[in-house]
Amino acid sequence: MDSTYLKRIIKTIGKENVITEYEDRICYSYDGTFQRGIPEVVVFPGNTGEVAEIIKLANIEHIPVSPRGAGTGLSGGSIPEAHGIALVLTRMNKIKEISKEDLMAVVEPGVITGHFHQEIEKMGMFYPPDPASLKTCTMGGNVAENAGGPRAFKYGVTKDYVLGLEVVTPTGEIMRTGGRTVKNVTGYDLTRLLTGSEGTLGIITEITVRLLPKPKDKKTALVYFDQLKDAAKTVTSIIYEGVIPATIELMDRVTINCVEKYTKQGLPLDVEAILLMEVDGSPAQVAEDIQIIEDVCKRNNCRNTEIASAYEERERLWKARRAVSSAIVQLKPTKISEDATVPRSKIPEMVKSLKEIGTKYQLHLPVFGHAGDGNLHPNILADKNDHDEMERVEKAVGEIFQAALALGGTLSGEHGIGIMKKPYLQWELGEVGLNYLRAIKKAVDPNNILNPGKIF
Amino acid sequence: MDSTYLKRIIKTIGKENVITEYEDRICYSYDGTFQRGIPEVVVFPGNTGEVAEIIKLANIEHIPVSPRGAGTGLSGGSIPEAHGIALVLTRMNKIKEISKEDLMAVVEPGVITGHFHQEIEKMGMFYPPDPASLKTCTMGGNVAENAGGPRAFKYGVTKDYVLGLEVVTPTGEIMRTGGRTVKNVTGYDLTRLLTGSEGTLGIITEITVRLLPKPKDKKTALVYFDQLKDAAKTVTSIIYEGVIPATIELMDRVTINCVEKYTKQGLPLDVEAILLMEVDGSPAQVAEDIQIIEDVCKRNNCRNTEIASAYEERERLWKARRAVSSAIVQLKPTKISEDATVPRSKIPEMVKSLKEIGTKYQLHLPVFGHAGDGNLHPNILADKNDHDEMERVEKAVGEIFQAALALGGTLSGEHGIGIMKKPYLQWELGEVGLNYLRAIKKAVDPNNILNPGKIF
Repeated sequence: MDSTYLKRIIKTIGKENVITEYEDRICYSYDGTFQRGIPEVVVFPGNTGEVAEIIKLANIEHIPVSPRGAGTGLSGGSIPEAHGIALVLTRMNKIKEISKEDLMAVVEPGVITGHFHQEIEKMGMFYPPDPASLKTCTMGGNVAENAGGPRAFKYGVTKDYVLGLEVVTPTGEIMRTGGRTVKNVTGYDLTRLLTGSEGTLGIITEITVRLLPKPKDKKTALVYFDQLKDAAKTVTSIIYEGVIPATIELMDRVTINCVEKYTKQGLPLDVEAILLMEVDGSPAQVAEDIQIIEDVCKRNNCRNTEIASAYEERERLWKARRAVSSAIVQLKPTKISEDATVPRSKIPEMVKSLKEIGTKYQLHLPVFGHAGDGNLHPNILADKNDHDEMERVEKAVGEIFQAALALGGTLSGEHGIGIMKKPYLQWELGEVGLNYLRAIKKAVDPNNILNPGKIF
Repeated sequence: MDSTYLKRIIKTIGKENVITEYEDRICYSYDGTFQRGIPEVVVFPGNTGEVAEIIKLANIEHIPVSPRGAGTGLSGGSIPEAHGIALVLTRMNKIKEISKEDLMAVVEPGVITGHFHQEIEKMGMFYPPDPASLKTCTMGGNVAENAGGPRAFKYGVTKDYVLGLEVVTPTGEIMRTGGRTVKNVTGYDLTRLLTGSEGTLGIITEITVRLLPKPKDKKTALVYFDQLKDAAKTVTSIIYEGVIPATIELMDRVTINCVEKYTKQGLPLDVEAILLMEVDGSPAQVAEDIQIIEDVCKRNNCRNTEIASAYEERERLWKARRAVSSAIVQLKPTKISEDATVPRSKIPEMVKSLKEIGTKYQLHLPVFGHAGDGNLHPNILADKNDHDEMERVEKAVGEIFQAALALGGTLSGEHGIGIMKKPYLQWELGEVGLNYLRAIKKAVDPNNILNPGKIF
């Protein structure tokens, strides 16, 4: 990188906010996948004006820029471009405003999601999106990737909560989209276009979100099924009865066995599926919903049902689900976490296909996920140093996507495309769709500055 | 229009599906506003392929095309361009698929929304978006304008229900966006970009929507307030208590007086506001919610509360709200219906500003609307033949928008920009935002074929 250019960046944001040493840059070369990319320089702007200055400079010199939050993403979206700038938003971490009256808040992109949850909940409100990484991940990253989480089934994903954004465009100008109101049809929905655009159409520098009042009551049910198809039928029946649980999590037999080995909590090793469901709302509603859930589970041949109301008991039931990621890497250290989503009614077929793919390529393939919206997380555990195995992994991943698409599903329910799924994008979108996306990207980022290697 | 070109259209879709006579073309020159535009020709394609053919031809000859549903829109979005083609989607009116298991349906754009509601409700499901014009308007038009309705407060708007689209692009190619799944982060969110794009980025030829199970119970409350600020405080308090009514409709004193004159149903003429609220859900939930509503209303000095459970009684309470549009045009025949939305807590200030604007310009200005999301419908009743009055109307409309924007609101909660609000778009979006929109439009519609006079 031109040293004049580097000097100009340093002048803009201050020497202490620029990293150039190799050993330090490595610390910003990763995300939640096993991909890597070492940037030329890492910068930490302190406000929107500084972000805009850097992007303007990048346009003059045609240097790629990769925005970054905490680097916990699961699709490669924040892997920096080699010879590019990693632009880290974590210094911009203020909660600017919280309004109980209008049930909304304004935050900077570097605010940690879990920290935001705590502040809001102290005030009797809640912000539903709950990605698994919430103790570390940032609100800006959540918007860029349209993060979901277990609560998405009832409450939706990040996109359903973003009311407006402040954005630095790929050419370094500052604009606002949306606003402070829930309903807004002014112009095109740039807020929703930018949410989930994985840092390719703009850098998010401020987020306005809507909040909900905190539910007054909550109950959790842990249910064992001898047959997976009964678990799947239970899911569709519960929803059809009009009950919308806050979460419906599924764990298959491979997953359950991994978890039990790890936590030794007494899970049965011979069930085909566990469903973990939580209902929230008013006490009357919650009591009614849990009763319906119990009835439906019984009608669908469940082996056992445990219901918990008090906080500690509910946490005990959640323990198994939260241990999954750590438990499965005990099998093998390289975790390829997939995210293929299918219509709810196709869950049994999808799980069957996944089992067949695991057997065909001789791979460990636990399946768990958000059964309520058909968003399964088939994981492959491998050893990245075993090249033969990694070749089989690549073939297996391709077949997983084909299976999802064949059942009317999609490549990515919540993790995003990033680098990982780029090659498969055309299967789902078709040439015309891909060209439409490319045209938009080219129109707003003529110098191809922002995250050039992502999505396309 | 070149007669060779006309011949090619006729060859593509059949003579019986093309209108050229002036008297007939006039019938497609209107929408729900008082704007007019007489197209050169009106065409009625029968399938997606025919739509694509016509758009391809339009690109060769650089002829503007205005897509159209039932022509009931409130922003001028479907007013045809003079010297252009009005492309009417009403022949494509099949409900292609309804899935109880996956709670989704696939429809052609010409399906009438009210008719779709009936089919779905027969099966025990429901599709929440309920624009006032639902007996006539089409699903395609609803998507193009991201239509809302009274139920939007609890259930959201059209955009919250569209899972995927089939679209003919402005250059005449066919693409699909989204899919059949609730969660999808593949590529950019073209589904949400196109929803509400008012026919400028593509023509919608098929829509996949998600459905909900029908709520088991419903109760309606009609409440009178001596002071508007008490009604507004009631709204925010109810929501803060965690009750999310399906609808919260507000009517001000001018509106009430018009309605009572028209329906003679015994409404009080000296109250400042009426709130009409409906809660739905399980019987236990509904009973609890209605009790909370009654308590909050009493705490906020309501004069009177009527609660209805049975269908006929609820319909009687709704009668006043449904009569509003017809009642207010008794004042004067030209209805300019505005849609400025403000944060909920700002409703009293906005209504005060509206009163002041009405007085300043000596105009009839009843105010009613969806108080739950701050989406007010200030209406101005005038006589379009009175030029002085129409000049005052134009000034008043500008001040209404400024008032909304000053309170942190938006120009349009649900009606769209169309022709009517174009001049004000820059106030809300700023130059950078407007350029970003224009760049997108230019990228996907290089020949500026689709609805060239709309939005920009």
